[in-house]
Amino acid sequence: MRLESFVRGSWMSPGQELAEVRSAVTGDVVAEVASGGLDMGDVLAYARQVGGPNLRRLTFHQRAELLKALAIYLSERKEQLYRLSYQTGTTRSDNFIDVDGGIGTLFVYSSKGRRELPNSTFLLDGAVEPLSKGGSFVGQHVMAPLAGVAVHINAFNFPCWGLLEKLAPAILAGVPVVTKPATITSYVAHALVRMIAESRILPEGALQCIVGSTGDLFDHLTCQDVVSFTGSADTAQKLQRHPVIARESVRFIAERDSLNAAILAPDAGPGTPEFDLFVKEVAKEMTVKAGQKCTAIRRAIAPNAHVPAVIEALRERLSKIKVGNPELENVRMGPVVGLGQRRDVLAQVAKLRSEADIVVGNPDDFPVEGADRERGAFIPPLLLHCPDPIRATNVHSVEAFGPVCTVMGYDGLEQAMALANRGDGSLVASVYTYDPGAASDLVFGVGAFHGRLVLIDRDCAKEQTGHGSPMPHMVHGGPGRAGGGEELGGMRGVHHYMQRTALQGSPAMLSRVTKSWIKGAPTVEEGRHPFRYHFEDLAVGQTFVSKERTITLEDIEHFAEFTGDTFYAHMSEEDTKDHPFFPGRVAHGYLLLSFAAGLFVDPDLGPVLANYGLDSLRFLKPVQPGETIKVRLTAKSKSPRNEQYGEVRWDVEITTDQGETVATYELLTMNAVRSS
Amino acid sequence: MRLESFVRGSWMSPGQELAEVRSAVTGDVVAEVASGGLDMGDVLAYARQVGGPNLRRLTFHQRAELLKALAIYLSERKEQLYRLSYQTGTTRSDNFIDVDGGIGTLFVYSSKGRRELPNSTFLLDGAVEPLSKGGSFVGQHVMAPLAGVAVHINAFNFPCWGLLEKLAPAILAGVPVVTKPATITSYVAHALVRMIAESRILPEGALQCIVGSTGDLFDHLTCQDVVSFTGSADTAQKLQRHPVIARESVRFIAERDSLNAAILAPDAGPGTPEFDLFVKEVAKEMTVKAGQKCTAIRRAIAPNAHVPAVIEALRERLSKIKVGNPELENVRMGPVVGLGQRRDVLAQVAKLRSEADIVVGNPDDFPVEGADRERGAFIPPLLLHCPDPIRATNVHSVEAFGPVCTVMGYDGLEQAMALANRGDGSLVASVYTYDPGAASDLVFGVGAFHGRLVLIDRDCAKEQTGHGSPMPHMVHGGPGRAGGGEELGGMRGVHHYMQRTALQGSPAMLSRVTKSWIKGAPTVEEGRHPFRYHFEDLAVGQTFVSKERTITLEDIEHFAEFTGDTFYAHMSEEDTKDHPFFPGRVAHGYLLLSFAAGLFVDPDLGPVLANYGLDSLRFLKPVQPGETIKVRLTAKSKSPRNEQYGEVRWDVEITTDQGETVATYELLTMNAVRSS
Repeated sequence: MRLESFVRGSWMSPGQELAEVRSAVTGDVVAEVASGGLDMGDVLAYARQVGGPNLRRLTFHQRAELLKALAIYLSERKEQLYRLSYQTGTTRSDNFIDVDGGIGTLFVYSSKGRRELPNSTFLLDGAVEPLSKGGSFVGQHVMAPLAGVAVHINAFNFPCWGLLEKLAPAILAGVPVVTKPATITSYVAHALVRMIAESRILPEGALQCIVGSTGDLFDHLTCQDVVSFTGSADTAQKLQRHPVIARESVRFIAERDSLNAAILAPDAGPGTPEFDLFVKEVAKEMTVKAGQKCTAIRRAIAPNAHVPAVIEALRERLSKIKVGNPELENVRMGPVVGLGQRRDVLAQVAKLRSEADIVVGNPDDFPVEGADRERGAFIPPLLLHCPDPIRATNVHSVEAFGPVCTVMGYDGLEQAMALANRGDGSLVASVYTYDPGAASDLVFGVGAFHGRLVLIDRDCAKEQTGHGSPMPHMVHGGPGRAGGGEELGGMRGVHHYMQRTALQGSPAMLSRVTKSWIKGAPTVEEGRHPFRYHFEDLAVGQTFVSKERTITLEDIEHFAEFTGDTFYAHMSEEDTKDHPFFPGRVAHGYLLLSFAAGLFVDPDLGPVLANYGLDSLRFLKPVQPGETIKVRLTAKSKSPRNEQYGEVRWDVEITTDQGETVATYELLTMNAVRSS
Repeated sequence: MRLESFVRGSWMSPGQELAEVRSAVTGDVVAEVASGGLDMGDVLAYARQVGGPNLRRLTFHQRAELLKALAIYLSERKEQLYRLSYQTGTTRSDNFIDVDGGIGTLFVYSSKGRRELPNSTFLLDGAVEPLSKGGSFVGQHVMAPLAGVAVHINAFNFPCWGLLEKLAPAILAGVPVVTKPATITSYVAHALVRMIAESRILPEGALQCIVGSTGDLFDHLTCQDVVSFTGSADTAQKLQRHPVIARESVRFIAERDSLNAAILAPDAGPGTPEFDLFVKEVAKEMTVKAGQKCTAIRRAIAPNAHVPAVIEALRERLSKIKVGNPELENVRMGPVVGLGQRRDVLAQVAKLRSEADIVVGNPDDFPVEGADRERGAFIPPLLLHCPDPIRATNVHSVEAFGPVCTVMGYDGLEQAMALANRGDGSLVASVYTYDPGAASDLVFGVGAFHGRLVLIDRDCAKEQTGHGSPMPHMVHGGPGRAGGGEELGGMRGVHHYMQRTALQGSPAMLSRVTKSWIKGAPTVEEGRHPFRYHFEDLAVGQTFVSKERTITLEDIEHFAEFTGDTFYAHMSEEDTKDHPFFPGRVAHGYLLLSFAAGLFVDPDLGPVLANYGLDSLRFLKPVQPGETIKVRLTAKSKSPRNEQYGEVRWDVEITTDQGETVATYELLTMNAVRSS
């Protein structure tokens, strides 16, 4: 099979220099990949001129719907991807992580996008900032999609997940993607891109795929582009230091392999559920994907006293792992991705052996099920033990990207934290303890060096998603050796593809530009009561100012009796003597809210369907019996929901008849669409 | 005056190689600066070992108090800084921007820090993320200060503001600072650091200052450090590409000079207030600090038809600007910072002149007040006009960092936006229009290329803070040529010095670690009603579950009559037929809230002082007459406020007696401290 690149909407024949890609299991040629032959300037230009405008035309919700449709389409075809993947050395459960994990990320971004983003084309970021005393000049940050390209450079180990987890946030943001899979597993990514292209779900230009080298692509990058790289530290540094990155300030996100740690806390000795969870997780992380995960546990850090028990328990677990042809049911671990990779792993193990001894596994002698040990890239799980991890350096810096882990002992939590941080920045660490004090110490002692921390104990044992599994909800990335980047993390990952711009101007002008009413901007008070307008007819700024109502002592006492809320501040003049906030008996906050609703509501059947919530209520001035209040209700912003109704956010201010602000809040209603 | 560095808590004599710093006005030697002689590894180690722990011991509010104290201390001594600054060529109003602007930034960070950050040592970032179906595994992002050093490399033009605007967010975050002022104005920064050191307000190790070269400082950086650089694109690129930056993934924030634009919209012709504001702002940005601002307007973009009027109006304004000794009252513009800078500016002007003609000002012949034109670094305001800005390249890429600006015409908004974006990324652009449609088009047409956009019109004319003035509330920085960095922006600038870590674990464990109760974590229901505990005695998780109350039709009708809220959904069975959310008449949301308070409140005089607010209320299930509700009230988190009281946030859930969730919200109370 000769792999083609998908650029400018069609499949391009590769260039002249062909490289062979071989099966990890049999060593047979699986595909041929070409290098060169593509005009990278053209590839980027097409994304910018066709893909970008096509995506930016859609709202966040519309893009989220595309992701959902794509997830469903791919779900129905995932067996094809499984079948191809076996040749990369992965078992069925490994493939589940790659294929289903990638599809699951699309689903999460689709549903979070619809729930957490407005149905529009830009975002408001943070609150309105007052910038002047008189209130005629204010600030508001907005975020809009970059006008460039998301360039995704992926690692070999997750050809599907890696492509999709980078694709989802970029597409949701409105930025077209050029993806470049790692050559050695590119036939899987190629099949995935073929499916996506055939589905025709994404708009034209939203996705291109370069199989082979990226050539001079970096020379064509601009400040509107984002490079998101996953892979080795060496390649990341080379790319990050490309002159165009600094010259054009191209956003560069790196996610590099790191020396991730699992830390067994002092309380979690043998016999505790946490000890067993630690052993299980270390063994799992060593063998899933044959240890080829940037998040895998490379360092198992345990109290000195428990180190022998840890090694024994791991020996028992690891000895049961059958290595061989990953298509076989009983095989638990396949080969690494290729013979070159096996050479690299063994070379790194040799470096580790200068400071640590192999205590489980023999790289020169181990059984292989259903495959030729010489032709496939097999390595058995190798557990090492480092007797002096404080003086050692290689065990904290040399990564053997295969089924390899080093156990090391510590004396006291301080030392455990120091050892964990010797990784100089990691993607993830896991902590095994049922002692909240130890957990707190560890979290704040190692947090600054880790992008993610998983606290594993008996309470979450059944449902915990694993040390090595990035979740789309949580950031994936870490400081230092891990590359300093962040991906995923829900909407945080979407922001990487957007430009934040600080807008400054008058409330009137910023309200018009941001389509969100700002206090100080003109209101519309003529016409009908705002509750009389259908969703599409309601103007942002449409305002109702109520009549006044005087709050009597009888009102307060009646409300107290009716609701049961006889809190002393409402009931007793005596008890509010010397009160820090109240000058005497005051009205209930809920009474004010309820009376305010009575003042602003337009009761008859109409387009307002329901008040579904309320945000940011603050009581600013207590109201005493005899004081008079009124309310202003202003349509602040609107977000279409579906064909029947949309969400309206109202700015509400209760004042006294003297104009003092009593309370402010935002009210949420669902309003019917006219045509529905 | 020989300038010393302030390192390891004392003033160090400089090394052997001395450089002379000369007055911009007279050319006389003002100070001597040494290069070398400091052990940069030691400087960083001291910050890490002494300054970091000293700062991290404090809460955000305590650090905010330090900033306020420092601001007050410096305010009382600012005349000293003014006096020194004249030698840098700046007028009194220029010095106001530098000195008072810097002090003002401390004040803003202090007050925003106390208002927007909790009184603790770490931040919760975003919501709890459900990660499992059963709810036993959840996620929460936290942010904690980096364990390293903030290395601040400043530009010459704002020796005080530049130092303080970078200092404030770092100190607030809890990260010690090593600041390196630009040599040519280092005597002003030096005086400022001397004041800060003498004040003894900041804890030991929180601030060090390197006068002269940074030597091999970059070789000692780690993943816990942040470099924040302001200055030329050339130096920024050199530093950004230092091998340690990529190797250790050191955070690198660059704020580089850019070709900022002012855009006169088509509606803002001569005679409109916006035309006059445009002319005024362009002239101001050319002459304030003799145009030596990274945010100054370099390109004045106007409709072709208005270009002659723009040039005429600018000629009139600029011809009134007196250039000379900045200490003189009537002088409006001083020299640039030195003779080298003048050479650079004139060389850049020569490049611009290949595409543009000087239309105002003559660099070879202009009057200078009260100073020797040859010995001082004087340049007159120079206005150029570029007749063909579409084909031109230098006017969009060559920055003359002095009192220089180029006027260029456009035909239609699309062309105006294309020209603005030819700057390939800018710190700021300003737009002059009273047409909201044009403003919207411009904002979203140029937003992705600009870090800040100022919309200037008649409504904000009196209070607008200026095209060129970064405000601490708004982000300062921009894409591409502007360096791709962000500074300031309120708490956004604080986050640059913190590590975000994704925590995953059981609700119980995460509640303990984050000191914030999470749904699913154990509650404490024994003991007294939670309202009976003083602030310090109340346990996070302390819970009250109320009795039940059945909502009757009479309740609803009575509430409607009492409050005046006779909305149809509460009053009419008929009107709720075919309602998309309601199965019939339902209780008011405010009735449910009020009854809930009646159910959970413990009324007697006690430590709860007031309910001051409510957040994130969502009504999830309508309640019909005859249904029964109850409430759970759980102490979610606490933040100390002062010696009298603290803030408590409560998680409240109203359910039916069948356990269905009716509403959820967060309630805010002020609770008295026991000792008060």
